[in-house]
Amino acid sequence: MSSQFGTIYRIATFGESHCKAVGVVIDGCPPGIPLVESDIQAQLDRRRPGQSALTTDRKEQDSVTILSGTENGITLGSPIGLMVNNRDQRPGDYQAMSDIPRPSHADYTYMAKYGIKAASGGGRSSARETIGTVASGAVADKILRQRYGIEIVAWVSAVGNYQAGAVDPEIITREMVDGNDIRCPDEQVIDDMRELVSSLKEAGDSTGGVVSCVARGVPPGIGEPVYEKLEAKLAQAMLAIPATKGFEIGSGFAGATMRGSAHNDPFAHKNGRMGTLTNNSGGIQGGIANGEPILFRVAFKPPATIAHPQQTVTYQGDEVVLEARGRHDPCVVPRAVPIVESMAALVIIDMIMRQEARRALSPLPSQS
Amino acid sequence: MSSQFGTIYRIATFGESHCKAVGVVIDGCPPGIPLVESDIQAQLDRRRPGQSALTTDRKEQDSVTILSGTENGITLGSPIGLMVNNRDQRPGDYQAMSDIPRPSHADYTYMAKYGIKAASGGGRSSARETIGTVASGAVADKILRQRYGIEIVAWVSAVGNYQAGAVDPEIITREMVDGNDIRCPDEQVIDDMRELVSSLKEAGDSTGGVVSCVARGVPPGIGEPVYEKLEAKLAQAMLAIPATKGFEIGSGFAGATMRGSAHNDPFAHKNGRMGTLTNNSGGIQGGIANGEPILFRVAFKPPATIAHPQQTVTYQGDEVVLEARGRHDPCVVPRAVPIVESMAALVIIDMIMRQEARRALSPLPSQS
Amino acid sequence: MSSQFGTIYRIATFGESHCKAVGVVIDGCPPGIPLVESDIQAQLDRRRPGQSALTTDRKEQDSVTILSGTENGITLGSPIGLMVNNRDQRPGDYQAMSDIPRPSHADYTYMAKYGIKAASGGGRSSARETIGTVASGAVADKILRQRYGIEIVAWVSAVGNYQAGAVDPEIITREMVDGNDIRCPDEQVIDDMRELVSSLKEAGDSTGGVVSCVARGVPPGIGEPVYEKLEAKLAQAMLAIPATKGFEIGSGFAGATMRGSAHNDPFAHKNGRMGTLTNNSGGIQGGIANGEPILFRVAFKPPATIAHPQQTVTYQGDEVVLEARGRHDPCVVPRAVPIVESMAALVIIDMIMRQEARRALSPLPSQS
Amino acid sequence: MSSQFGTIYRIATFGESHCKAVGVVIDGCPPGIPLVESDIQAQLDRRRPGQSALTTDRKEQDSVTILSGTENGITLGSPIGLMVNNRDQRPGDYQAMSDIPRPSHADYTYMAKYGIKAASGGGRSSARETIGTVASGAVADKILRQRYGIEIVAWVSAVGNYQAGAVDPEIITREMVDGNDIRCPDEQVIDDMRELVSSLKEAGDSTGGVVSCVARGVPPGIGEPVYEKLEAKLAQAMLAIPATKGFEIGSGFAGATMRGSAHNDPFAHKNGRMGTLTNNSGGIQGGIANGEPILFRVAFKPPATIAHPQQTVTYQGDEVVLEARGRHDPCVVPRAVPIVESMAALVIIDMIMRQEARRALSPLPSQS
Repeated sequence: MSSQFGTIYRIATFGESHCKAVGVVIDGCPPGIPLVESDIQAQLDRRRPGQSALTTDRKEQDSVTILSGTENGITLGSPIGLMVNNRDQRPGDYQAMSDIPRPSHADYTYMAKYGIKAASGGGRSSARETIGTVASGAVADKILRQRYGIEIVAWVSAVGNYQAGAVDPEIITREMVDGNDIRCPDEQVIDDMRELVSSLKEAGDSTGGVVSCVARGVPPGIGEPVYEKLEAKLAQAMLAIPATKGFEIGSGFAGATMRGSAHNDPFAHKNGRMGTLTNNSGGIQGGIANGEPILFRVAFKPPATIAHPQQTVTYQGDEVVLEARGRHDPCVVPRAVPIVESMAALVIIDMIMRQEARRALSPLPSQS
Repeated sequence: MSSQFGTIYRIATFGESHCKAVGVVIDGCPPGIPLVESDIQAQLDRRRPGQSALTTDRKEQDSVTILSGTENGITLGSPIGLMVNNRDQRPGDYQAMSDIPRPSHADYTYMAKYGIKAASGGGRSSARETIGTVASGAVADKILRQRYGIEIVAWVSAVGNYQAGAVDPEIITREMVDGNDIRCPDEQVIDDMRELVSSLKEAGDSTGGVVSCVARGVPPGIGEPVYEKLEAKLAQAMLAIPATKGFEIGSGFAGATMRGSAHNDPFAHKNGRMGTLTNNSGGIQGGIANGEPILFRVAFKPPATIAHPQQTVTYQGDEVVLEARGRHDPCVVPRAVPIVESMAALVIIDMIMRQEARRALSPLPSQS
Repeated sequence: MSSQFGTIYRIATFGESHCKAVGVVIDGCPPGIPLVESDIQAQLDRRRPGQSALTTDRKEQDSVTILSGTENGITLGSPIGLMVNNRDQRPGDYQAMSDIPRPSHADYTYMAKYGIKAASGGGRSSARETIGTVASGAVADKILRQRYGIEIVAWVSAVGNYQAGAVDPEIITREMVDGNDIRCPDEQVIDDMRELVSSLKEAGDSTGGVVSCVARGVPPGIGEPVYEKLEAKLAQAMLAIPATKGFEIGSGFAGATMRGSAHNDPFAHKNGRMGTLTNNSGGIQGGIANGEPILFRVAFKPPATIAHPQQTVTYQGDEVVLEARGRHDPCVVPRAVPIVESMAALVIIDMIMRQEARRALSPLPSQS
Repeated sequence: MSSQFGTIYRIATFGESHCKAVGVVIDGCPPGIPLVESDIQAQLDRRRPGQSALTTDRKEQDSVTILSGTENGITLGSPIGLMVNNRDQRPGDYQAMSDIPRPSHADYTYMAKYGIKAASGGGRSSARETIGTVASGAVADKILRQRYGIEIVAWVSAVGNYQAGAVDPEIITREMVDGNDIRCPDEQVIDDMRELVSSLKEAGDSTGGVVSCVARGVPPGIGEPVYEKLEAKLAQAMLAIPATKGFEIGSGFAGATMRGSAHNDPFAHKNGRMGTLTNNSGGIQGGIANGEPILFRVAFKPPATIAHPQQTVTYQGDEVVLEARGRHDPCVVPRAVPIVESMAALVIIDMIMRQEARRALSPLPSQS
């Protein structure tokens, strides 16, 4: 297990689907930050299942409590304990499957790793684990916004084969993203996406999708070469989200097909500072932010839990047809939006703190 | 800077293009492993520029010396110091560019971060930095092969728009990959790729490409949820390689377009153990290896150094046309092959050691 | 802040005196370990204030809840969340002191560090913070005992100038230590110690003391040179306990006055294995356990909170006489006993896991 | 092995006595710092054996080379590789002892840990390993002095039973310490100490001693509670030095015998800031520096290598008399002085960088 993330702003999460609570401890949060539960609850609500008819029917309240680290609504600089009680515990739903590792779930691999089966299959592989991520990321996000003006906005850019058209990363906001239940800002494809999800829900099937994300206002100079390049830590952070299969920064896989003469981003002076005319780099060069919007995309596979009967085998090797019950989403990408934003915030705040640490001891000026 | 990687098998690299030496210190290498320079040199030679007419003309010997950590060709368990002297130092080539940050290089971002210009622009962003990665990865690779039978093989699967056809990940070997100078095992596209690279060299331009990689024989149970899922650390490792823009595990971005009923990998008994009939998961479920081949792809952008004149601006904001000199590769993916393999080995050995640590203290049997 | 400890068995604690709860998250605990609240409660009860008439009058229940990481009383391998609610919150007691940093408390330094005053003065410097340490250490202690037969026993070896006579580290047990409320196994000095503490309580003063500790059964080979030598991590662990001022291993400061010919521990065969005839080394040589009992001593200063009027200054620099109220211990060493044991267990389990990780990959046999 | 130290200013050392070189890689050093070999060589020369007739006869040049991380004598912000070649390799001296683990050396424990014998016995337990510590500490020391005015000075305060009288920690300098070959600033005891060391050299025996150290000018607020309190990391750092047996901060073990009313340090305004009238706290309260001089003492055991015949056993258990040859110091504390200073510098610079990281993101003013 490694449920910890970050070097200076460092989180430690805990909790399975069917234990008493899930939560997170944030170590290294700066003191003096105004922080109350509602700062965190907003992002948790966006992550919560049961937000729309499109997704799972499970109702989770996911009400967060600040256990420690603040006094009178101000952070003390000490560890911030955040907890969400588990209410909707129905391990019974999973009982029938205890002999059958569900295809493309983590039941089998958790058993291989730990030699023990949690009631819910892969204990920490549950999407419920992301509550700690989102809660601690919401705190980071608030600090980045208030102290540096950094804005992190994610949106659904594809559901199945339906792709959103161009979204302007300079202006997109969370309000725009939340304008519909798919969290896709391209009104043209919303109906198609919604219809697809509905039909899959009906059919007991599921679909993958893509979440895109921009971080605006990250100062030039942020990112720690060599092994902790900004894009490298973002890649780790995104692939740590359940159900992700791919990560692209800037031009991504399309960039692999391009010529250098077309791919290079020429410099130009923009608003009194160095900028680039194109942004194939995705806002990062040599592992370090260059001041342009940081742009990346994350691929999500279709949820593994489907109502479709599936031909598979038991742990003992007997062939069997698995018919899953329980309540699950045909498409998780709308709910993944705040998770992507939170992981990005966790990466960026830690990188900024590391840069500030070095900068304070250097006689040289730096841009960030 | 964060030139360190790993938790137990932990490396610390050093060196720019124009200092005395580059190298790496490996901390945590097990004792009793036979290790001599030639074990490491083989992968360094595959990484070296000037291997073929297709790539850069620079001749680098890159001869590695073991400074510490072995006696009579056996590892002691103490830190292994590995060093390669820098011989071909020609900072003069870069002098002219000192006022002009090269587009899509790290010159500007290193300046923004550190407030100082290394002679070669972005000091540690140079591909020469990867020597430490490859050297320490070669040691990990040897241990994984001998102790666990793990085989890690990478190959070029695309150059520009030329894509290699299906390669069987169960049988591909490094010898097969090295069968041609592109390191692409699909003979059908070699000529096209080679011709493209030659023409771009002529034209002073460059192209991107894709490296695919398989790790066979990784035991089920390897990988550390939540934030250090096996695919998450592989993603970080790959995006830490210079010029990378994307990472996919298993079905990758294509998986985002699929239905769950098609994407799920049904279990079956294979050779007396649990296996899957398809491998959209890429050998990893819930962050943990399931025993199937681990499959991933890495996108590389076209090298930023081109002979093409480029319209850009100086640090002072004056418009200027940059005509780069110096010797560079039109296509780096053939040389990236051993780097990808080495980063994969560094991730996997560390994960295995962490699993062994936990396993030794548990009363439960586990598969790995 | 750095409220995290350990590399593989890694804890993250949280909580101040006056927030909702204190607790800890254990990451890296092996799966399959039987674990229920009562396993942890025993050590928490030994740490609790109000155990005897000698100490503070505060009654704290300190009842621990396992929030996550177990199912049916067995660890899952996932993070174990442990929480103790804060009940006896009386910030009012501290109000009067808000302008006067208490001498030798952390009020002033926390203010200097964080720029904010917690209600209780130095937020995390409270002894209440040690609940997380003791809870997570109790889990480690149980595993070490059951899996390796390691026994860790601490006792009070001095209170003020009263020193306990020789205690046989080979046979001392926790039961023997708990035979009296001072937790000193030398019956000869108990009455003197008890009388001293009582008189100081009466006088509104306090006294320091020394806690000694033995760890028996730690296998030869445990400890990670160079910077994480076993004695180095024990030293860090002990000096991380509130109110500690010194650490000695084996001969300690007395060893500095000795000749090498007298200090060296000759080897001899004992019970079929290598042992030493004397133990000035304290069971550790070159940072690595040699199989002899590991012996160390920890100095505790007198508690800073006293009823004596104290001449000091306010934050504004005005001279003032401080007369503290509130309820505090005249002597903390009896309650420090389980804290010392817990920190020792946290160090040793992490070191053992790191050794096991390396050993599993080495072709060489090793003793541990 | 864990030859790495620090969180942001992080070092990785390598090298045994009989390999090609010893050295260190510093990751996280701020850019723009003037740095040439002679900045480092000064402390290495103070650590070197053969400085006076009192110590070992071995002549080591220990000439350091900067391999990377600087250009034109200025740090780049990239990893600084530092190397010292091993010249005086005489493994032959140790050959005779290969079957006999030397009492109180690390021969046996390294064998138990790694299952392999280095030519020199405990490979990394050699004092030669401290070269990397001293070299990287010298860089930290220079930065702390120039950027914060911090002065770290260590001296010999005891050799055997001879104790130096009071030394004023406010004014002691390295020049004063280097006034004699014992590095003890109390002229009264020098002759006794020197005579003792000479007679022990003659007799083939050795003696322990104590090194005291002060760090002046560390800003209030430095230190990371809970587990990385400033005194806790100093304790780890000091016990990581070969041959150390104890650590005291401020009042130390003597503090354990005191009353709270005598031990508490009353606050007073000194030079316009909060200070304390006494300094039993040793400059640290609650793990955080309070602005007073940081004072600590380190106990060193007598060197284990003596010419005295020693009764012991072979690995096979046969009784044998060991008569050691080779060249060694009867008293290491004079040479330990720069090692203690370097480890202190490594702790303090890392703690300062962590405080700066947090401070930069907080809206609250803090003192440091």
